[in-house]
Amino acid sequence: MVINMAAGASEAELQHIIERVIECGFQPHVTRGAERAIVAAVGSGGSRAALEALKAAPGVEDVVPIAHPFKLVSRQTRSERTRVAAGGVVIGGEDAVVIAGPCSVESREQIFATARGVKAAGASLLRGGAYKPRTSPYDFQGLGLEALKLLREVREETGLPVVTEVMSTNDIELISEHADMLQVGARNMQNYDLLRRLAKAGKPVLLKRGPSATVKEWLLAAEYLLAGGNPNVVLCERGIKTFETETRNTLDLAAVALARELSHLPVIADPSHGTGRRDLIAPASRAALAIGADGLIIEVHPCPERAMSDGAQSLSLEEFARLMNGLAAPLRPVASLCAAEA
Amino acid sequence: MVINMAAGASEAELQHIIERVIECGFQPHVTRGAERAIVAAVGSGGSRAALEALKAAPGVEDVVPIAHPFKLVSRQTRSERTRVAAGGVVIGGEDAVVIAGPCSVESREQIFATARGVKAAGASLLRGGAYKPRTSPYDFQGLGLEALKLLREVREETGLPVVTEVMSTNDIELISEHADMLQVGARNMQNYDLLRRLAKAGKPVLLKRGPSATVKEWLLAAEYLLAGGNPNVVLCERGIKTFETETRNTLDLAAVALARELSHLPVIADPSHGTGRRDLIAPASRAALAIGADGLIIEVHPCPERAMSDGAQSLSLEEFARLMNGLAAPLRPVASLCAAEA
Amino acid sequence: MVINMAAGASEAELQHIIERVIECGFQPHVTRGAERAIVAAVGSGGSRAALEALKAAPGVEDVVPIAHPFKLVSRQTRSERTRVAAGGVVIGGEDAVVIAGPCSVESREQIFATARGVKAAGASLLRGGAYKPRTSPYDFQGLGLEALKLLREVREETGLPVVTEVMSTNDIELISEHADMLQVGARNMQNYDLLRRLAKAGKPVLLKRGPSATVKEWLLAAEYLLAGGNPNVVLCERGIKTFETETRNTLDLAAVALARELSHLPVIADPSHGTGRRDLIAPASRAALAIGADGLIIEVHPCPERAMSDGAQSLSLEEFARLMNGLAAPLRPVASLCAAEA
Amino acid sequence: MVINMAAGASEAELQHIIERVIECGFQPHVTRGAERAIVAAVGSGGSRAALEALKAAPGVEDVVPIAHPFKLVSRQTRSERTRVAAGGVVIGGEDAVVIAGPCSVESREQIFATARGVKAAGASLLRGGAYKPRTSPYDFQGLGLEALKLLREVREETGLPVVTEVMSTNDIELISEHADMLQVGARNMQNYDLLRRLAKAGKPVLLKRGPSATVKEWLLAAEYLLAGGNPNVVLCERGIKTFETETRNTLDLAAVALARELSHLPVIADPSHGTGRRDLIAPASRAALAIGADGLIIEVHPCPERAMSDGAQSLSLEEFARLMNGLAAPLRPVASLCAAEA
Repeated sequence: MVINMAAGASEAELQHIIERVIECGFQPHVTRGAERAIVAAVGSGGSRAALEALKAAPGVEDVVPIAHPFKLVSRQTRSERTRVAAGGVVIGGEDAVVIAGPCSVESREQIFATARGVKAAGASLLRGGAYKPRTSPYDFQGLGLEALKLLREVREETGLPVVTEVMSTNDIELISEHADMLQVGARNMQNYDLLRRLAKAGKPVLLKRGPSATVKEWLLAAEYLLAGGNPNVVLCERGIKTFETETRNTLDLAAVALARELSHLPVIADPSHGTGRRDLIAPASRAALAIGADGLIIEVHPCPERAMSDGAQSLSLEEFARLMNGLAAPLRPVASLCAAEA
Repeated sequence: MVINMAAGASEAELQHIIERVIECGFQPHVTRGAERAIVAAVGSGGSRAALEALKAAPGVEDVVPIAHPFKLVSRQTRSERTRVAAGGVVIGGEDAVVIAGPCSVESREQIFATARGVKAAGASLLRGGAYKPRTSPYDFQGLGLEALKLLREVREETGLPVVTEVMSTNDIELISEHADMLQVGARNMQNYDLLRRLAKAGKPVLLKRGPSATVKEWLLAAEYLLAGGNPNVVLCERGIKTFETETRNTLDLAAVALARELSHLPVIADPSHGTGRRDLIAPASRAALAIGADGLIIEVHPCPERAMSDGAQSLSLEEFARLMNGLAAPLRPVASLCAAEA
Repeated sequence: MVINMAAGASEAELQHIIERVIECGFQPHVTRGAERAIVAAVGSGGSRAALEALKAAPGVEDVVPIAHPFKLVSRQTRSERTRVAAGGVVIGGEDAVVIAGPCSVESREQIFATARGVKAAGASLLRGGAYKPRTSPYDFQGLGLEALKLLREVREETGLPVVTEVMSTNDIELISEHADMLQVGARNMQNYDLLRRLAKAGKPVLLKRGPSATVKEWLLAAEYLLAGGNPNVVLCERGIKTFETETRNTLDLAAVALARELSHLPVIADPSHGTGRRDLIAPASRAALAIGADGLIIEVHPCPERAMSDGAQSLSLEEFARLMNGLAAPLRPVASLCAAEA
Repeated sequence: MVINMAAGASEAELQHIIERVIECGFQPHVTRGAERAIVAAVGSGGSRAALEALKAAPGVEDVVPIAHPFKLVSRQTRSERTRVAAGGVVIGGEDAVVIAGPCSVESREQIFATARGVKAAGASLLRGGAYKPRTSPYDFQGLGLEALKLLREVREETGLPVVTEVMSTNDIELISEHADMLQVGARNMQNYDLLRRLAKAGKPVLLKRGPSATVKEWLLAAEYLLAGGNPNVVLCERGIKTFETETRNTLDLAAVALARELSHLPVIADPSHGTGRRDLIAPASRAALAIGADGLIIEVHPCPERAMSDGAQSLSLEEFARLMNGLAAPLRPVASLCAAEA
């Protein structure tokens, strides 16, 4: 931390800060400029929050953090990339992994048809919501236990490991019995009670980025899981809220590259929620792989216009198969100058 | 809902939509323009989500909602304003109500000193965190039960009803025994599991707006509480996330007026989190009252620079007393043209 | 500036930075921590941009600014508040000033009716667009010179000084002959060519904040005017772009207080563009005065539903008169604890 | 447009709207629901702005646009993709095109070294600023005419066509003599005076998206150029402003795909400004091509740490060469289920 004294701060105010920095468990290093002094708090044993509170001390203009606040998720702590296995499928290995399936499990027919279709097209894991976080209490909230049972059945038939969302700490045990990977939805990214308990659940976790979470806040949410004892965390960028209204969210693909640079955890992308438009999901999927994503999670439904949730952004099985084929195509070639002149 | 057909949609595609609108429980009314047709889905018995999924049907360009999706929180359902009583103090009545206290309960001395000070300055309720949602797992997480006990003691002495945050569904019962009003923090605004259980808790709820929640999403979160059986909900605007970095959040004061217009629930403002700067809290408090807020919630600490959380945005007791005095001052007078010419 | 070395930076990399800081015209002060070193660049004679480029040097993690980059607009340069006179009306004095009028000048009848009406209601200056920045080239672009002539006539009759927008450097001279104050619209806040020429125009300038400008960027735009020789600048907060869609923009009222704290220039608010909703303009106007605004600028039209631009956010003359009356009402009183207990 | 009447609107209010819709040049089609009526305004000859103003009429709750407001830039007007030739290089053809060069032209040595280097690495056009829009008036503002002359010289030697920014309408003629393509910077995207004159300049235009412009606003800015007579427009996504602070902007890659879907104009991406971080430029460049960008524009400097502007986001010549090589690499392969099981 650097404590930036105000231009007119007195010597007594500066001395007070120096003493407080020591009290907080750091060594103070003072630099006196022509107009103002700055105090660098050096060391790692003390309390960052205590230093931040010094912003309230007289004569202080600002307190500026220097180092990143996360530890276990950082590549400075662990330089090799983490591989997370979910039901035998490895996320974060050489190849990218595709998770696909409906927003919600709606019926036996629907989930079996989807699972068979996405497997045939090359998906490695199945997604499907049993408990759904819905903006309105009057919208379909998921089939609950019935959906969990169907997911287990369909996994047995297809061999596809299952990812499903956990909304309540009371459901963790039950869902863990039926699913291979537990998803924390974007709206629960900072539900610390849920994170703390998932840290003890013994299952890999798919942690979605909150719609207004900075990359740092996202990594600190993952830090709760690692600090609590669960190293098997996959990060998922799913779009952030911005002023743009043509897309449901703004898919922050640079954040995928950045999260992989700052952290050793695998990072996947969700172009379905990230764009909210069926026409953009395939190109956004290609872009996600190009920027380094370890995988994709995509909403697929046998009949999107009859989906009970997220139909507008769900691909049909045919569309999904086309998307998968498109992932193998090379990037658009770059014109060389000679070619242009020819 | 209005279903906007694409410019080149075929007659068969239009007929399909007409049939689907009927299936969804609405009456279709078709308007054929020169370039495109639109289908209005009329009625209220059907499923909005089912209509929205028609965006995925062939020939559809967009599905545009017309009516607001909330019911019980709406002024169309209840025209008189709701008054919420918390420990005998009414929020939403004639007068504005001030809730004040520290971010976290840290010690007996700290919470008693704060409670006595804010009461003397005119606060009507005491705030204080026992369980704290913190961005980093390494930051102070609150004293828990010990803090609850202190809050109960200080309430007995001062008579100030107590507001404190609930982070976990497992704590609802315990906290309800100690506090008069249960706060849902901004990060948990869409923690629907928590909302559903708070709807049954029998205590008034202070519902903070999420940092990236639209006013509609905020009201729909309140709808979960009312639909679940709890009519005693107070809304709290506490700033939204924007690109501005000089303030911690952007306090959306127009949202206070808007929420009071759309809903009958009381709405208060949190200028401490809304600005994150001690110098802006007093002017923002005045502005909140001027725009119609039913109250304020303000962070106060006997010694902000030693606060274990949010010190940078906490007022000292002296600063808080000055703020309260300033709330009685009239608005800046407006120059009449004559005066300017004189 | 503080140059934050990376955790693994070598001694040679650190020495290189020390030399470069000296080359850039600053004195380097090094603090060595357990994990990393930081270099503070002290002094004010050198180039900030050159220091910022050091982010590209090997071993550097970040370059963090400490001081604010603006000078002439800062209260550190001038502690007394600036008063700007526009056609005899002082903005930034004891009393708040109200500027009112239509979005666009549409006809003699319209502008005369509006001017008489807003004057009678207490406005001190008249606004009215002659050249309109419109998102679409197919929308009404203003009456141009004809509008300027009407504004001059109406000023002669009513005595109301006139504010109008300048979109083109080629129009500055012409508009200066007809108007008392030149407005820089939000979309042109960083049109530096326009700012540089307005600095020489000899007229006061109303500088609107860009819809995505930080307070710092806004003040730096004003700095262009002051550095170019024009000290008569009034800042105008008119709402920023956020994810909220119920309001046209998010009126950032805390920015009014902040800009007045950082700068000596007067700051007014535009609740018409800031909210885009007629029902919110009056409460937002009260809030603006409560937070310290030096004035308001409000769109008024004799028949809003027939306005050629911005009708949806224009007040009728009756509504405007009501708004003006409402500005004198006191703030909502705060309940004392005793009252609540009684 | 659809005019959504309020729930309690009277029959007289509805009749008034019907008459006004006809006056505005449209045919009204009324749908009466249980709670409210909606009026669809059909036709294309009338004034959209006049319809929008009906939001101010009594009994109206909202006016909702149905069709997109742009015409000439739309793929509905022109289905084949536009190819724009700049100095002989075609943008929007089969191959992607790379534009590279320094933020500012600083010296003969600098611009010649950069041009030779980027040409050798495969760039097809040279960028370089002569007139620079800078947030602070105290920062380097560009070499002006001297820079233009250097760009012309370096073009003669290398054969690379030149792109440079126009900030002032007064410079259009001069810059047109020296450059092959004129850039409109992000801050000037809605400088309509500049757009109108560039429509007549006879040179292709590179139109950057404003940092807070929606895709619609961006396309409408291009509409000014096409409507004014210039069909040679290339759109450039360069990042938007969001709450994320780790990157300078948020590169909205989905907007590249969306703009190409809505419009026939070529769309390129600027990962240098879009991310502001040298470590993210190469992966973001790959992602831009993967999502369908017609090209890239990248900042390159022979010695980034000594750049007079944007050094922190400029690549060295070596880094740029590596980036170009990386553009040919295939996408990360997708694991098939079998592989995962093996």
